[in-house]
Amino acid sequence: MTLQNDRFLRALLREPVDVTPIWMMRQAGRYLPEYRETRKQAGNFMTLCQTPELACEVTLQPLRRYAFDAAILFSDILTIPDALGLGLYFEEGEGPRFRKTIREATDVSNLPKLNTSQDLSYVTDAVRLIRQELNGSVPLIGFSGSPWTLATYMIEGGGSKDFRHAKQFMYNEPDAMHGLLSLLAEAVTDYLNAQIEAGAQAVQIFDTWGGILTPTAYQQFSLDYMQKIVSGLHREHEGRQVPVILFTKNGGQWLESIAASNCHCVGLDWTVDIGDARRRIGSSVSLQGNMDPSILYASPDAIRAEVARILEQFGEGEGHVFNLGHGITPQVDPANVAVFVDAVHEYSEKYHRN
Amino acid sequence: MTLQNDRFLRALLREPVDVTPIWMMRQAGRYLPEYRETRKQAGNFMTLCQTPELACEVTLQPLRRYAFDAAILFSDILTIPDALGLGLYFEEGEGPRFRKTIREATDVSNLPKLNTSQDLSYVTDAVRLIRQELNGSVPLIGFSGSPWTLATYMIEGGGSKDFRHAKQFMYNEPDAMHGLLSLLAEAVTDYLNAQIEAGAQAVQIFDTWGGILTPTAYQQFSLDYMQKIVSGLHREHEGRQVPVILFTKNGGQWLESIAASNCHCVGLDWTVDIGDARRRIGSSVSLQGNMDPSILYASPDAIRAEVARILEQFGEGEGHVFNLGHGITPQVDPANVAVFVDAVHEYSEKYHRN
Repeated sequence: MTLQNDRFLRALLREPVDVTPIWMMRQAGRYLPEYRETRKQAGNFMTLCQTPELACEVTLQPLRRYAFDAAILFSDILTIPDALGLGLYFEEGEGPRFRKTIREATDVSNLPKLNTSQDLSYVTDAVRLIRQELNGSVPLIGFSGSPWTLATYMIEGGGSKDFRHAKQFMYNEPDAMHGLLSLLAEAVTDYLNAQIEAGAQAVQIFDTWGGILTPTAYQQFSLDYMQKIVSGLHREHEGRQVPVILFTKNGGQWLESIAASNCHCVGLDWTVDIGDARRRIGSSVSLQGNMDPSILYASPDAIRAEVARILEQFGEGEGHVFNLGHGITPQVDPANVAVFVDAVHEYSEKYHRN
Repeated sequence: MTLQNDRFLRALLREPVDVTPIWMMRQAGRYLPEYRETRKQAGNFMTLCQTPELACEVTLQPLRRYAFDAAILFSDILTIPDALGLGLYFEEGEGPRFRKTIREATDVSNLPKLNTSQDLSYVTDAVRLIRQELNGSVPLIGFSGSPWTLATYMIEGGGSKDFRHAKQFMYNEPDAMHGLLSLLAEAVTDYLNAQIEAGAQAVQIFDTWGGILTPTAYQQFSLDYMQKIVSGLHREHEGRQVPVILFTKNGGQWLESIAASNCHCVGLDWTVDIGDARRRIGSSVSLQGNMDPSILYASPDAIRAEVARILEQFGEGEGHVFNLGHGITPQVDPANVAVFVDAVHEYSEKYHRN
């Protein structure tokens, strides 16, 4: 089936587009009343993730409201550790938690071997269903957490303020940590390839916590494993390239290294000047980002001004996918999202005339 | 009185030293049992800050245990907003809170004019007492929060995860925000000058939350005001230069701009390679930092290896004050701090032979 709107895939590969494509991290999320309704029906968050019909429904909800140029699979970044037997659960307002944690080298060697096609079939089922329902309107993005990011949750047993246990493990047991990260890199590769085979047309690796590391540790414990994943992914499916986006929150100081990973696109948070980023790495990769999600709390005029500013910073030509610099937050007024999306399309047209 | 150990002040000015000086952000803090004891005696945190004898006692505690090359005034970064009538208080395990918040332009215009010598006399009294008790052993550092950082707490009413209200205020009411920041910049200038007159021999401005801004907003709403403060500070006291350290957490992308503020030293968090930082700005300023505080949770060997790595990254020659990249955390074993401090002195000697 021909894709009716492929500007997202084209921009990722730095091919010409009519306007700058846009999607939003966490676009299927709590800021939407219909999402909150479906989640309530599901009873809990894991049921929502693990029921393909419900995951499909919430994936499509933002596309009914806004002119997004891509859908992103609704799922959680922690499905792999859950499939590895750590027991993911969510407490209201608390974020993710694991019943079991990794604290010693033997905890790593005791982890089972993952069989993605069996253990995470609910995800690939959802991907197939979403592709069918999208019916060629816009492409579908698959995703995973990065090995380092998954490891932090597995070691801490949930979110953390100072990542004490994860860093202790990394500094005191570097071999066990590398063992864990190798295992996770393999699992993520299989997982993303399964999503691609099921129909994901681009994939993003979320390295939410790479930015808490020193430059040396980031390279060794996060980026090296993402690079391994990139090199193991299917480069083509259904006769089209499958672009890979790497997003390290607070990774602005390491853009050159990230771009050297052989990914197609580097995701930027809002602390980076996207014009500088383009000068630094724009000849080898496309860029995704990078509006501060907090601007969606401001007035429509302030939102439009910020969109205009970012488009101008990037400048003329190809290789920009508009996005927030991190996920949209739950308290945002859905009306402001419409202002945001429309402004990107409206204001970007003039940068794509040649 | 002659200073017996002035290597901290000399390193800040890039003058020759025998070994790299070290102090630690939050060195007078909860990781020390004697601190917890004094705080218990004080009853609450504000009493500890506001009683010069107690503030002096906790300032000196870490110096009795470790070979630190500087003392830092024990106080809170939020003394100025408290003096402006916002009503600072602390709830156990909750962080700082204000009884009143700034949410509208009129809240800014209703703020009283600060009279530092009266309203914050408990701070200058503490400085004088500490200087007397230090008796010339090591220099004393004074400090303040940056205007932007103070403003975030005043607007949010405490700490925040996404700084929703502060950013909303900044984007929707930029004039009122600039009004607030101007008022705070003046107050911080007076406050630091009062500390200098009372005996602080160097001062540090903590811009804890500058790093949550876009590059443009950081320049306009944080750095411009710190620069204003630097230009208003006494450059000399007691016949010696009074060096100024600017520390923006997550400011690694903006080092050139920070160094251009006319400060003497730029504080680095651990996401920066201090060797790169030296190449970028080391010909105009000294550098302070930058070990990840989490390494203090690791083994003595891991701590020593990290100290050696950072010293090697900085390399030979002058202009380095060793520190953590952020404050020490409460759960650290005090024995590991001794390992850290001694390693800095021991391993750095060879970099200062010429």
